[in-house]
Amino acid sequence: MRRNKKELKEPTLINRTRVHVRFSETDAMGVVWHGNYLKFFEDGREAFGREFGLSYTTIYENGYTAPVVDIHCQFKQSLTFGDTIIIETSYHACQAAKLQFTYTVLRERDGLIMATGQSTQVFLNSSNKLELVNPVFLKEWKENLKIL
Amino acid sequence: MRRNKKELKEPTLINRTRVHVRFSETDAMGVVWHGNYLKFFEDGREAFGREFGLSYTTIYENGYTAPVVDIHCQFKQSLTFGDTIIIETSYHACQAAKLQFTYTVLRERDGLIMATGQSTQVFLNSSNKLELVNPVFLKEWKENLKIL
Amino acid sequence: MRRNKKELKEPTLINRTRVHVRFSETDAMGVVWHGNYLKFFEDGREAFGREFGLSYTTIYENGYTAPVVDIHCQFKQSLTFGDTIIIETSYHACQAAKLQFTYTVLRERDGLIMATGQSTQVFLNSSNKLELVNPVFLKEWKENLKIL
Amino acid sequence: MRRNKKELKEPTLINRTRVHVRFSETDAMGVVWHGNYLKFFEDGREAFGREFGLSYTTIYENGYTAPVVDIHCQFKQSLTFGDTIIIETSYHACQAAKLQFTYTVLRERDGLIMATGQSTQVFLNSSNKLELVNPVFLKEWKENLKIL
Repeated sequence: MRRNKKELKEPTLINRTRVHVRFSETDAMGVVWHGNYLKFFEDGREAFGREFGLSYTTIYENGYTAPVVDIHCQFKQSLTFGDTIIIETSYHACQAAKLQFTYTVLRERDGLIMATGQSTQVFLNSSNKLELVNPVFLKEWKENLKIL
Repeated sequence: MRRNKKELKEPTLINRTRVHVRFSETDAMGVVWHGNYLKFFEDGREAFGREFGLSYTTIYENGYTAPVVDIHCQFKQSLTFGDTIIIETSYHACQAAKLQFTYTVLRERDGLIMATGQSTQVFLNSSNKLELVNPVFLKEWKENLKIL
Repeated sequence: MRRNKKELKEPTLINRTRVHVRFSETDAMGVVWHGNYLKFFEDGREAFGREFGLSYTTIYENGYTAPVVDIHCQFKQSLTFGDTIIIETSYHACQAAKLQFTYTVLRERDGLIMATGQSTQVFLNSSNKLELVNPVFLKEWKENLKIL
Repeated sequence: MRRNKKELKEPTLINRTRVHVRFSETDAMGVVWHGNYLKFFEDGREAFGREFGLSYTTIYENGYTAPVVDIHCQFKQSLTFGDTIIIETSYHACQAAKLQFTYTVLRERDGLIMATGQSTQVFLNSSNKLELVNPVFLKEWKENLKIL
């Protein structure tokens, strides 16, 4: 992924949100099951959407869906039940009709990085066809937030 | 629930299906998290539907949905990763426009009962309104299977 | 369950906690999958534990686990993505070595009751044997909170 | 990931396993929620382990755990409820003390590729320390299967 990371522009917007680890998210090794970090990333995207006006609901009301087409996760440390995490979700602007986010999951009590991740979403219109150019609502959203 | 159980008619149709416990279904106590048994019950209902022609898809294609309105589960023993289970799903006929199932989850290697459960589903029509009388497709399904 | 409800003493302690519905918790019917309410109930138990000093961690540090042996849920309305819920978790004292909770899940924006539930937990000691009498730490917890 | 893929040796062992999509695995878009593919990958690893003698249980009984430290997933098409999938799990031998798998998730009815993925696992010993050299049991496993 080093190559991909280089390609990503610097983040232009960052959201931080706080989540309690659920007991049901742990596994028999006593730690959070690795697949559950994709829920944390989605928590991050949604908190980002609520802060900056780009939630799933907004996208949907504009006639689009934005499915995840690529996700990558690096696990550094293990979360356990009782932990509270901070999810940092960073938006990376790009010319293509895509949404690119990176994630850092930190343990609240000591700020240790538990996992990092990257995701790419594309836009499908109401006929489920891939949009090759940026939807109008996204252009306006970028303009309002002065994102190039 | 003793009262409810008494009310239930004897089961008229029974399906048995086999499921591997997933590692992601265990929790930090080393056993299957209790909430995951509702997935096993749904596995049971679906296997029942495939065997007897009453799947979610069939119900949906006839213009209905059948949401669960009541579910009850008794946990007897703990399943662990590596276990394979047999889910017995029993259909209990009733006059009302409802689907009533009971479940027994057995560990395959020794037949031990791990959990039991009961569920009730109602029918909503395409306007999301509760159906008070049995949908026609359900009457025909019962007749075909000689269920009173 | 009417019988069971009658048997329960009036709740002596109530916790209220707030949870966002996750997109991953919805199903193809567009609403929260019924099994996910057991996660909400557990959120409620844990928030209760944090407020009143009876978390899974506390129980565990005292040498016990408290598995759920019975859970019952009544679904009234459907939650959708974007909803925020209030979970009311009520502790019902009893003489037996058990923990009995009831739950009410309300939609925050209008206070509508979406689901109700009841759960029973027992105590296993460090040898995984059922405790027939109340553990000392639980007696002390009740005394401290003036619960009969 | 093209770079990573180049680095991977050709797969030496391949397992194929069959899984029904669960209703609870769909989301409000009517398709399988993207995070659930990590469950399919784990189904694949476990089926691989059962076929070739390298299950979580085997690893654990030899004094190790093998946590996933990196996972990458590319989503191509959407699975819906009712679909049955074939998960192809390929083991890629490497000199380092790691397990490297790639995955292809195919829809059974037409063989269409729905998703691909890659994962890397490391070995922790019983003190939770990273093993820098291949555990003895893994060397023997490779020798038995004539993997270089």
